[in-house]
Amino acid sequence: MSKELVFGHQKPDTDAIVAAKAFAYLQNKLGKDVEAVALGEPNAETVFALNHFAEPMPRIIKAAKPEVDEVMLVDHNEPQQSVSDLADVTVTDVVDHHRINGFNTAQPLNYRAEAIGCTSTIITEMFIEEKIDIPVQLAGLMLSAIISDTLLLKSPTTTDKDREIARFLAQIADIDMESYGIDLLKAGTDLASKSDKE
Amino acid sequence: MSKELVFGHQKPDTDAIVAAKAFAYLQNKLGKDVEAVALGEPNAETVFALNHFAEPMPRIIKAAKPEVDEVMLVDHNEPQQSVSDLADVTVTDVVDHHRINGFNTAQPLNYRAEAIGCTSTIITEMFIEEKIDIPVQLAGLMLSAIISDTLLLKSPTTTDKDREIARFLAQIADIDMESYGIDLLKAGTDLASKSDKE
Ligand SMILES: [Mn+2]
Ligand SMILES: [Mn+2]
Ligand SMILES: [Mn+2]
Ligand SMILES: [Mn+2]
Repeated sequence: MSKELVFGHQKPDTDAIVAAKAFAYLQNKLGKDVEAVALGEPNAETVFALNHFAEPMPRIIKAAKPEVDEVMLVDHNEPQQSVSDLADVTVTDVVDHHRINGFNTAQPLNYRAEAIGCTSTIITEMFIEEKIDIPVQLAGLMLSAIISDTLLLKSPTTTDKDREIARFLAQIADIDMESYGIDLLKAGTDLASKSDKE
Repeated sequence: MSKELVFGHQKPDTDAIVAAKAFAYLQNKLGKDVEAVALGEPNAETVFALNHFAEPMPRIIKAAKPEVDEVMLVDHNEPQQSVSDLADVTVTDVVDHHRINGFNTAQPLNYRAEAIGCTSTIITEMFIEEKIDIPVQLAGLMLSAIISDTLLLKSPTTTDKDREIARFLAQIADIDMESYGIDLLKAGTDLASKSDKE
């Protein structure tokens, strides 16, 4: 079994980065050789979350085929949102919460999508189904992704499952969801940090 | 919440019929209003399985929109294998084990595919995940679908998961998998029964 890469969409948000890290962790626990990578620089909110839980940013790639034959997609499925050479590699797994658009495969694959608020909610369910313990830092990051995608469980896409999983992750990470969530969302809209970068 | 229809592909095999019946049962237990239908007459093998477990054949439809706005697909995703008016309804759920080909949606949906031998294997997993008891007759039918799709667990598409789930279903149905399986596969290739029909 050869190594695979897993990544979220271009112009990554927190869910795209975190879901890749979490799914790589899960797949490695299940015996596969999977590395999480990203298709672009993290935004200010994602940097805040990674720093808060002392977790590294995945390295950034543009194309997959120079490194691997097989890939896994999280938080997207549309080819134009993915690596530039998606057509040259085989997609073995997708975990997503978006509509399916222009995604075709030559072979059967594992595809897990739910019409809910966040990919990280689905990945947390998969940890539970597989009875794999979620590390504290990863729980904090997946909670961050849910807070980000659902605007602290207030967006219209939020489901009861997102709420239930968010509470579950907050407990593992020992985080006060409300106060941490406000800090996280503020970091993402912080004009000061943005003008610092420019 | 309005009623939905669930169906397998045109020219149905045993998995297409059985997966629709099983997924309708599961969704109804989860509180939805879902009816299993079929897109064509059952083959001789499917008739044998339905008779053996005294289960009715779903009624046959060609188009969905005259009856419902939303549908669920099992054992297929390619529009040309589906109802003639798939473009006029919303697909809310797919459970499948084939490649994804030409399937696009306007909205997020629940999509569950695995690269394994049979859709009924995946649906059995979903019963287990949701902690819903599988009725004896449905266990026998889902076992029949796995036997049919995997040629008694001997086809190259068969995975350990299919084998494990088949044993689990055989236990619930109290069926000797080998002897029943040979009878089932023979019914599907029975020249006598075929010439009877002609
Ligand atoms: Mn995203
Ligand atoms: Mn997302
Ligand atoms: Mn089939
Ligand atoms: Mn099948």
